[in-house]
Amino acid sequence: MTETISTEVGAERSAVLRGADGWLDTLQDWVRIPSVSADPEHRTDVAASAHFFADQLRARGFPEVEVLEDGPYLPAVLAHWPSGDPDAVRVVVYGHHDVQPADGEHRWTHPPFEPQIIDGVLHGRGASDDKGNIAMHLLGLDAHLAATGRTAPAVDLTMLVEGEEESGSPHIMELLERYRGRLAADLVVVSDTGIFGPRTPSVCIGMRGLVAGEIHVHGPDIDLHSGSFGGSVPNPIAELSRILAALHDDNRRIAVPGFYDGVIDPTETERAATAALPFDEQEWITGPAASRVAAGEAGWSTLERVGARPTAEINGIWGGYTGPGNKTIVPTDAYAKLTFRLVGRQDPATIMRQVTDYVQSIARPGVTVEIRWEGGGVAPLYVDTTHPATTATRKALGLAFDVPADDVLMTREGGSGPEAELADVIGAPLVFLGVMTDADQIHAPNESAPVSLLLKGCEAVAHLWRELADLGRAGLRQ
Amino acid sequence: MTETISTEVGAERSAVLRGADGWLDTLQDWVRIPSVSADPEHRTDVAASAHFFADQLRARGFPEVEVLEDGPYLPAVLAHWPSGDPDAVRVVVYGHHDVQPADGEHRWTHPPFEPQIIDGVLHGRGASDDKGNIAMHLLGLDAHLAATGRTAPAVDLTMLVEGEEESGSPHIMELLERYRGRLAADLVVVSDTGIFGPRTPSVCIGMRGLVAGEIHVHGPDIDLHSGSFGGSVPNPIAELSRILAALHDDNRRIAVPGFYDGVIDPTETERAATAALPFDEQEWITGPAASRVAAGEAGWSTLERVGARPTAEINGIWGGYTGPGNKTIVPTDAYAKLTFRLVGRQDPATIMRQVTDYVQSIARPGVTVEIRWEGGGVAPLYVDTTHPATTATRKALGLAFDVPADDVLMTREGGSGPEAELADVIGAPLVFLGVMTDADQIHAPNESAPVSLLLKGCEAVAHLWRELADLGRAGLRQ
Repeated sequence: MTETISTEVGAERSAVLRGADGWLDTLQDWVRIPSVSADPEHRTDVAASAHFFADQLRARGFPEVEVLEDGPYLPAVLAHWPSGDPDAVRVVVYGHHDVQPADGEHRWTHPPFEPQIIDGVLHGRGASDDKGNIAMHLLGLDAHLAATGRTAPAVDLTMLVEGEEESGSPHIMELLERYRGRLAADLVVVSDTGIFGPRTPSVCIGMRGLVAGEIHVHGPDIDLHSGSFGGSVPNPIAELSRILAALHDDNRRIAVPGFYDGVIDPTETERAATAALPFDEQEWITGPAASRVAAGEAGWSTLERVGARPTAEINGIWGGYTGPGNKTIVPTDAYAKLTFRLVGRQDPATIMRQVTDYVQSIARPGVTVEIRWEGGGVAPLYVDTTHPATTATRKALGLAFDVPADDVLMTREGGSGPEAELADVIGAPLVFLGVMTDADQIHAPNESAPVSLLLKGCEAVAHLWRELADLGRAGLRQ
Repeated sequence: MTETISTEVGAERSAVLRGADGWLDTLQDWVRIPSVSADPEHRTDVAASAHFFADQLRARGFPEVEVLEDGPYLPAVLAHWPSGDPDAVRVVVYGHHDVQPADGEHRWTHPPFEPQIIDGVLHGRGASDDKGNIAMHLLGLDAHLAATGRTAPAVDLTMLVEGEEESGSPHIMELLERYRGRLAADLVVVSDTGIFGPRTPSVCIGMRGLVAGEIHVHGPDIDLHSGSFGGSVPNPIAELSRILAALHDDNRRIAVPGFYDGVIDPTETERAATAALPFDEQEWITGPAASRVAAGEAGWSTLERVGARPTAEINGIWGGYTGPGNKTIVPTDAYAKLTFRLVGRQDPATIMRQVTDYVQSIARPGVTVEIRWEGGGVAPLYVDTTHPATTATRKALGLAFDVPADDVLMTREGGSGPEAELADVIGAPLVFLGVMTDADQIHAPNESAPVSLLLKGCEAVAHLWRELADLGRAGLRQ
């Protein structure tokens, strides 16, 4: 195997392996900070996490590092390391340092904020999403400098690491607009996605959009005795259930009128390519999906449902009495949290309006129904698969995984981030470089990341900077 | 007005008014004990409440008083005061000393367990349901003895005050069977119901049955990232919503097959009598129901929906992420608490089986659905409206409210209690004597009871014992 690896590859890999232990200590220190953006009680932790990462960038040599705490957004990190070469490719790396809540405490085998490496796997909230994947740029840059013998990166490097992605990046546009002048770039590299499988490297070529909201159904103004009033006034939980049940038809297709207007169906060629992916559905069901069946919109495969089709999900629900025993009431209120994943040309603002109109149209008299949307949502994003930067990314990943660039697959991810805004405001093409897998249990208890994959990610970063330097700005323009 | 009141009435009323202050102090001390049967953390309070009431019975002269703590049931009070006359009517009075949970703390204007009398209204959890109504038997008995000059009651009096009625009386049958020998009676008097309105006394002639259960829908074994897995595996909240929405059809009729088999529709005469009741629906909607509309099973009036029709209610729901912000997951589990009110010959065990079968029949593959029923449920109960005891109760209540017995209405209540079991095991007719009103906010925050109505209830108790003594055992047999 080593015979097929060029000396440059060996240099980057050697540097990564040399720095691995120290880097893993740093990553674990970072995971130890519970930077949960959704929970106001963790505000100071989110700030501490930003400062921690900023200090790491400074320690590695970044001459310009700033923690942005001047807006409605939670603290973000903005850093810049000029290449010194006026013709160097200008890259903005995007990721986030906030993490998902770690509720469901009893289901965490390893405490979420006490990271440990066991049998080659790093356990902890953020080990993968996204501290693990954004930290790759620390060791990756070290390796790039070591392998090339440079004192500054061969690309003009800007890092933007925000602190509220897990809350839907509600203020990312404001942040981007405010710092637009410092974000001029030829390419955006997003490190917040994954690969098809541990032995099947892939680059993400699309992410779904997202709108998130909370629905509130208000019934009687006081809890009522269900014997004296039940069956004679509207029950807000029953009304909410009715509304939620009406989000999908019997084929699990979303029933909101106009919802699919912006969807672009994949071509037959795309469908054939997706069908040819080495996907073992049964293994997926019993493994990462931890489910009993695959089930979704009729007429589409599981991979299509995740990557190419929009969704409506209920993420949480509550109302009435939820304590021990029973309480015979008609409760006053019921709530649910909803998210919609968008594809194609589905527009977040249009979707919000359509869902609100639909819910109001099916709500029955006697309850008040409100949907409060979080921020403006994010639009779907598609990568230009023929762009030289996409090819360079596949090549870099292929080198790290010891496979030819052509064998690095191109897949759509079901997740969402502010990528469309990034690409739009920065006005540059965008690629994804991340090594999460479905086994990482991101957003769930027991999040983890295999150390070997994280190190391959570090190596891929080092390769990518060299590949981009080789291409030059001219080469990036196709 | 006073000219129409006989001297006996005056004697009972005078005695009630003389004892009112001390009695109200006692009742407030009792309300101070948070005897919430649904919450295991309040187990010692439920016991303390039983001992408090037992001490009150002893202080009033009851020669035989026992707190029953020898079974699976929470502590109940059983007391007996023989009349001394072998031909005296034997009465068992039933009520309960446990109370509903007092959650929704921020919505209590007066703290639930710090009773206060403000503008003639007693505020506190249990002020009405059922401490207020069962305490009426303390002062009522005092007044009976004072007015008749007796040292023992004119009826042979047994008090059975249980401690888990608000939890559905799960062990009442076991308790009744165990103490059957001490519960021989000619009549059961239940004090746990209300009157039509503060100026419209009525006796309850029917209560609905009840079954209560919790439904649990289990989806994936771990919370899944809704971007990576949403739309491709079943969402347990969506499945639960679908099941709950399918409990009723579009006419708000319960859709469980066979559910209405045991329902006995009211006759045209009964419907006409109900329609003739002085019921102001608009006042009811904006007043006690605190709602915007009346809504229920098509084809029936509000009073019929509450008294004569069965219901399916959702009392609580929870699942997934319910904290601040949003969390993009497909959660593992969703839960709801359900209660069904039964009428006519609807059998609790049959209803449980029908609901379970229906829910399983509509559940879709990929989730597991379980319903855990609480205890065996309670059957509906109907009072014989022509029985001399019913007439005596109307007369007693009429005397306390200064209206002729014929003007004391007969109404059905929507609530449920273990009355059917009581009547069945004791083998005696049953009447209801209680003075709750829809304004009391029982089961809701800010429970209260007007002192004037509680005192009228005390007086009615005193009249009832005299009326029953006048009838004698022979007179009770019709």
